[in-house]
Amino acid sequence: MNKVTGYLMLLRPKNALMSSIGAIIGFMTGTSSDPIRCIITAVVPPLVLMGGNAVNDYFDYEIDAINKPYRPIPQGIISRREAFVSYILLSVSGVVSAFFLGPILFIIAFSFALAWYFYAKTLKAKGLIGNIVVSTGVAFTIIFGYISASGGSFLLPTTLSLIAFSSNLAREIVKTVEDLPGDRRAGLSTVPIRFGMGATKNLTKGLIALTCLLAFIPYILRLMGVLYLIFSIASVSILVYVFTKMDDLSPETARNFSKFLKLAMALGLNGMLLDLIILR
Amino acid sequence: MNKVTGYLMLLRPKNALMSSIGAIIGFMTGTSSDPIRCIITAVVPPLVLMGGNAVNDYFDYEIDAINKPYRPIPQGIISRREAFVSYILLSVSGVVSAFFLGPILFIIAFSFALAWYFYAKTLKAKGLIGNIVVSTGVAFTIIFGYISASGGSFLLPTTLSLIAFSSNLAREIVKTVEDLPGDRRAGLSTVPIRFGMGATKNLTKGLIALTCLLAFIPYILRLMGVLYLIFSIASVSILVYVFTKMDDLSPETARNFSKFLKLAMALGLNGMLLDLIILR
Repeated sequence: MNKVTGYLMLLRPKNALMSSIGAIIGFMTGTSSDPIRCIITAVVPPLVLMGGNAVNDYFDYEIDAINKPYRPIPQGIISRREAFVSYILLSVSGVVSAFFLGPILFIIAFSFALAWYFYAKTLKAKGLIGNIVVSTGVAFTIIFGYISASGGSFLLPTTLSLIAFSSNLAREIVKTVEDLPGDRRAGLSTVPIRFGMGATKNLTKGLIALTCLLAFIPYILRLMGVLYLIFSIASVSILVYVFTKMDDLSPETARNFSKFLKLAMALGLNGMLLDLIILR
Repeated sequence: MNKVTGYLMLLRPKNALMSSIGAIIGFMTGTSSDPIRCIITAVVPPLVLMGGNAVNDYFDYEIDAINKPYRPIPQGIISRREAFVSYILLSVSGVVSAFFLGPILFIIAFSFALAWYFYAKTLKAKGLIGNIVVSTGVAFTIIFGYISASGGSFLLPTTLSLIAFSSNLAREIVKTVEDLPGDRRAGLSTVPIRFGMGATKNLTKGLIALTCLLAFIPYILRLMGVLYLIFSIASVSILVYVFTKMDDLSPETARNFSKFLKLAMALGLNGMLLDLIILR
């Protein structure tokens, strides 16, 4: 294996080509037919993805030495330093190219370039979450292309919808804890019955944490105003409180948890509504 | 408790109000400022949701008699027949109103009216999936409102992206099965190591089934053409084959599974691309 083959193995250009096709598909579902814009759109995801592949091997050299000794770093064809430099150069090229597509796509490309680094560094061993991150990266190329052609106005309602989804799902699960004794007698298979209270608490905590993270995105991206922010801070404060008390969740206390979550959701929803009515 | 209180309990108008606010929020994130359209948009989700609440109690009367004897049907305030008639009337009102908002929103409202029926009839006992269905219904009101104000052109790339996501996630998980022996030695916590081969097979099957279902939506909604359909049928055939062989998944066979999934994905992706290039 020579250096060129080594780099090809490191960067996985076939996967990168797939991501480019994804971006072109997304672009073509949109309204723009500017060929230059389409080309830039098709170039960003493979650059960022190849960078991600390089940084992946950079961090995985120890595991790969056991698990995949045929990879270019364990074989000694590519040095770790070369892999890291590849990550930096490819990511910077991708993110700089995305700059010409506008602020939203710049932020998205930058986020994914960072995400691949942290995925490779910390999430790799986590299994399912890592798999979900990779699949999101691949699937998002289509959305990336569409935004490039038609703009990202749907991102705000989608984010608000995800906030509503994750907070509501947390509350639905808490309500099944409230119904636990009766549901068990009735032979139902709800989350706490099926997965146990430990997993139920962790799932609820995960959903609450996700809600808190998502809640700030609309303000950070300047898609919502200060009124939304104020209500969100109040709502997130309640969510953080519920999160810290999660160990106490039981059929006896679930009703209170549910009420707190409902209050947080009502605050969040009102913040969205008032901000849109007053500040638009 | 009199009849009016009984109906209020049955239909849960407070939750319905939340869904209406969700639709208004979504509408206001969009571009239309037509007040009549906004009002119709705000009316559809609560009608459909109240119908769903009614049919829920209609099916749950036995469990509620044990678990929630204070509900209006176990109390004898509302008859099961009255609950079912409420479901029909409210759903029909909601779906007919949605008709004036255009075909996409009509289909969405109709799908949710049906979904609440099947949720109440069969999914209730399933726990997590039921919780996810309810939360999707609540969260989707925001998307519903946005589509009403700005159109649903983002639905095509989003659906294509979900197809890419679920198929890719299936393949990522299959690849962790391939790496199982080495990953176990390296102390990693991948899906098969953490959850076992049984759960891994079921998760992969679920993702493949989801991919197959999603694959036909773009053609059914006439968002993609016949070229997409042909490639999708080829791709889905491979996926169905992989699905039926899932019992044989093991570290030794995973490489083949992964190749089949990659072929299915390549076919699907090419179908999307060619259809958009040639038929647009």
